[in-house]
Amino acid sequence: MFEQVTILGAGLLGASLGEAAKLKNLVGRVHVWARREEIREKLDAEARWCDRSFATPAEAVEGADLVVACTPVEHIVGLFGEIRGSLRKQALVTDVGSVKQQICEAGRASFSGKGIFIGSHPMAGSEKSGLENADPRLYEGRNCFLTPFADEDIGVPLTKLQNFWKGLGMRVTLTSPSEHDYIVAQISHLPHFLASALAYHLAQKPSSWDNLCGGGLKDTTRIAGGDPGMWTDIAKQNRGQILSALDEFEGSLKLLREHLHAGEAHAIKEFLKTGQTYRRRLPSTYDSD
Amino acid sequence: MFEQVTILGAGLLGASLGEAAKLKNLVGRVHVWARREEIREKLDAEARWCDRSFATPAEAVEGADLVVACTPVEHIVGLFGEIRGSLRKQALVTDVGSVKQQICEAGRASFSGKGIFIGSHPMAGSEKSGLENADPRLYEGRNCFLTPFADEDIGVPLTKLQNFWKGLGMRVTLTSPSEHDYIVAQISHLPHFLASALAYHLAQKPSSWDNLCGGGLKDTTRIAGGDPGMWTDIAKQNRGQILSALDEFEGSLKLLREHLHAGEAHAIKEFLKTGQTYRRRLPSTYDSD
Repeated sequence: MFEQVTILGAGLLGASLGEAAKLKNLVGRVHVWARREEIREKLDAEARWCDRSFATPAEAVEGADLVVACTPVEHIVGLFGEIRGSLRKQALVTDVGSVKQQICEAGRASFSGKGIFIGSHPMAGSEKSGLENADPRLYEGRNCFLTPFADEDIGVPLTKLQNFWKGLGMRVTLTSPSEHDYIVAQISHLPHFLASALAYHLAQKPSSWDNLCGGGLKDTTRIAGGDPGMWTDIAKQNRGQILSALDEFEGSLKLLREHLHAGEAHAIKEFLKTGQTYRRRLPSTYDSD
Repeated sequence: MFEQVTILGAGLLGASLGEAAKLKNLVGRVHVWARREEIREKLDAEARWCDRSFATPAEAVEGADLVVACTPVEHIVGLFGEIRGSLRKQALVTDVGSVKQQICEAGRASFSGKGIFIGSHPMAGSEKSGLENADPRLYEGRNCFLTPFADEDIGVPLTKLQNFWKGLGMRVTLTSPSEHDYIVAQISHLPHFLASALAYHLAQKPSSWDNLCGGGLKDTTRIAGGDPGMWTDIAKQNRGQILSALDEFEGSLKLLREHLHAGEAHAIKEFLKTGQTYRRRLPSTYDSD
């Protein structure tokens, strides 16, 4: 489908993407830029899916008809300036960042008259990270947002990009960048920061309690095990939406507290039922669910 | 180890316990009281681990040297009065309730001069419930609290009960009933009510978002799928400790909010790191972790 995809960044998402795209015959060549020399050496020696690795983003994108920026979100915008000069005419550029407004605005400005930028957000994170945890099935059955601006005329490349993510087994949803940032603040960033706050709270308790923890606590805090640096970047890029989501959540929590405080069994039960109904209707889409 | 264990209540916990105890040769006979006739019929027809089922708790406990109350917490205390009269002299009585102070006080008062009551809390819940989900491995690798009062002289039965739970593959922790209630409010009840509040909050959002949910949200809200009736009972019995735990948690959340609001990247990252370190040090004790 694509002649050459260039992946910028060989962490969990980039390496899993390269391997999956090659396995599923969605691309001819996979070229990869990795910042660290030891990663490039590992790619050359061990990653059969990687046709060539490069020491600079500019060299890596030469000849690519698809470029996917897979670095941490805070480095994505900086890459745009580095690759603009060597980008093939009409190349399609996307990224896998979990916050979209800032990145999409920068992408539109950077590639205007050169390539075409459409933001992507495959919801395929994990509390693990790095090339060593790469898994070509990481994307399967998950959702992927594509976030074109409404006023752009990009029908053909948009369809190609949709088919690429679908080819990896993903369900694709189209939204504007700002709508995306609102939705993920609620369904992804809010759960993350709550899990972290719960873990932070319990970190103040005796460590002898660790062995007393049941599966419920482990499930509830699992994502707090994720990379603090990555989540700090997300917090910076989507701060306003995350604070709004926290405000709204605290409204719900306050309601529950009031029911608990008043000992209103019926109201507590109805509250819990609403949550149960919601949780039970969420679709099962991946192995561990 | 025990001649006859009588299990009061054939839900998920009771049925899993009866089956596991029989499989592991910890008991001679397993007698079961189930309130509903259809459950008794099912036990008689299908449950090979159940030697006999009974229509009343009083009949069921006759001849037992170990009685385990496995009903929802709010019915446990009521059972004590029903079984006192037919209890064998020096029989050991325990329960599996997840709140202990009220139950243990009632148990001590009910069985004084007759049997010996020691509270148990095997942390082996699930968001599933009922006889049909029974699983003899439910208890394996999990923690079990035993909650004797400090002033009781019950060395021998306490050791027997410890060995019973250990025989089911559990790690046993001894605490007073009130210390137990404090700890589980923090590590079990707080996560549950937070997961429910998050699920309640997201239930107010468009249902079209359901398909956009990733694994992080599903993990974080999994326990919100649990039985609202059971959790309402827990809320009633451990209200004060749960409200205190919520207060403390909100202090941590407020700190995170302040860091977010101020855009203090370093402080956000340190907060998330503390949570990550906590989460990563929790021991893996069961399959899905």
